[in-house]
Amino acid sequence: MILVGQYDSPVTRRVAVALHHYGMPFSRDARSIFADAVAIGRISPLTRVPALILDDGEVLIDSTAILDHLDEQAGDRALCPASGPLRRQILQLTALAQGTMEKAVAVIFERKFHPPAHQSAAWLSRCLGQTRAGLDELARRLVGPFACGASLSHADVMITTLIWYLRDRMDEGLSPVAHAPLISLADRCETLPAFQAAAISEFEKTPR
Amino acid sequence: MILVGQYDSPVTRRVAVALHHYGMPFSRDARSIFADAVAIGRISPLTRVPALILDDGEVLIDSTAILDHLDEQAGDRALCPASGPLRRQILQLTALAQGTMEKAVAVIFERKFHPPAHQSAAWLSRCLGQTRAGLDELARRLVGPFACGASLSHADVMITTLIWYLRDRMDEGLSPVAHAPLISLADRCETLPAFQAAAISEFEKTPR
Repeated sequence: MILVGQYDSPVTRRVAVALHHYGMPFSRDARSIFADAVAIGRISPLTRVPALILDDGEVLIDSTAILDHLDEQAGDRALCPASGPLRRQILQLTALAQGTMEKAVAVIFERKFHPPAHQSAAWLSRCLGQTRAGLDELARRLVGPFACGASLSHADVMITTLIWYLRDRMDEGLSPVAHAPLISLADRCETLPAFQAAAISEFEKTPR
Repeated sequence: MILVGQYDSPVTRRVAVALHHYGMPFSRDARSIFADAVAIGRISPLTRVPALILDDGEVLIDSTAILDHLDEQAGDRALCPASGPLRRQILQLTALAQGTMEKAVAVIFERKFHPPAHQSAAWLSRCLGQTRAGLDELARRLVGPFACGASLSHADVMITTLIWYLRDRMDEGLSPVAHAPLISLADRCETLPAFQAAAISEFEKTPR
């Protein structure tokens, strides 16, 4: 399998963490959706990552849909049960973390594609407020020791990749005090082998 | 149950269609994420729709996660099997249609929140190109008579709500010629009882 995408994309990295956790071997196409848009568009029609090229050539898109397939292959090792209340809880917390990321991405793209004088204050304020509200709610809902209880799940992975992203890309959203439970969870997850195997390379970090 | 959101949101409407198809009774909170942002934010922390308030008060967010739960309740009537290749096919086509919608939404929000002189030509061009590429790929992948074969699935519902949205909100994306198979599928689906029961009210359409 080939995972397409850079790990500065929290949703790409969460697929990588799951692949490592499941012990599924894969290689990576780490070209950029901006610098190499044409090449990525030939693989993934929406020019989005992650995409996962299966061994028979089939291309899967969308982290949630990709993980749905991988979870089925993973059986008992899956980071989410196939049904029931714990599945609902994990999918909800994961969706909340992913939605929070999407609002942070909206802030970052507003800044990337507009000079300061052309940025919409109303849009930035709305998206920043949504990002903070998402983080507040995530912190409120954590169960412990992992996000949804005793075991690592997709919710922990999405929260951890989100926290890395916010620390690297956007100072305003994450509060060291209010969101301490999220930061602490992420710091602990980052020490696990599957996360270390999907560490972010220097070229994927924001240049300092 | 209470479904929160207006049907001009293709992802809100797709949950409504599934609820009607499954024969699950619900009422609706059709307040606006913009005009009534504070009220919606009290229900759904990211101020996003759809949200589904269950009878015990639990609030579910994110159309994919909501439908995952409803599909489990629906059993054999589910618009997606619980596992296997057809599930993968349906989730992939649905993700492609939803991703296409997200790029169209990005175009519409760029225009809504910026005066023409402040809109980013690079961002609009990128998102419009992604919208068109998504539609091209959707048209190429349709199987017939429904999107993934013999039966109605979540893919048909997402494509149909997407087509309505594009016709109402954004002229540039949808080609009557190149995307005729999508338009034809959507027109046929709109005649089905579950879609008619989730018809868009006048107040949800773009004022003419």
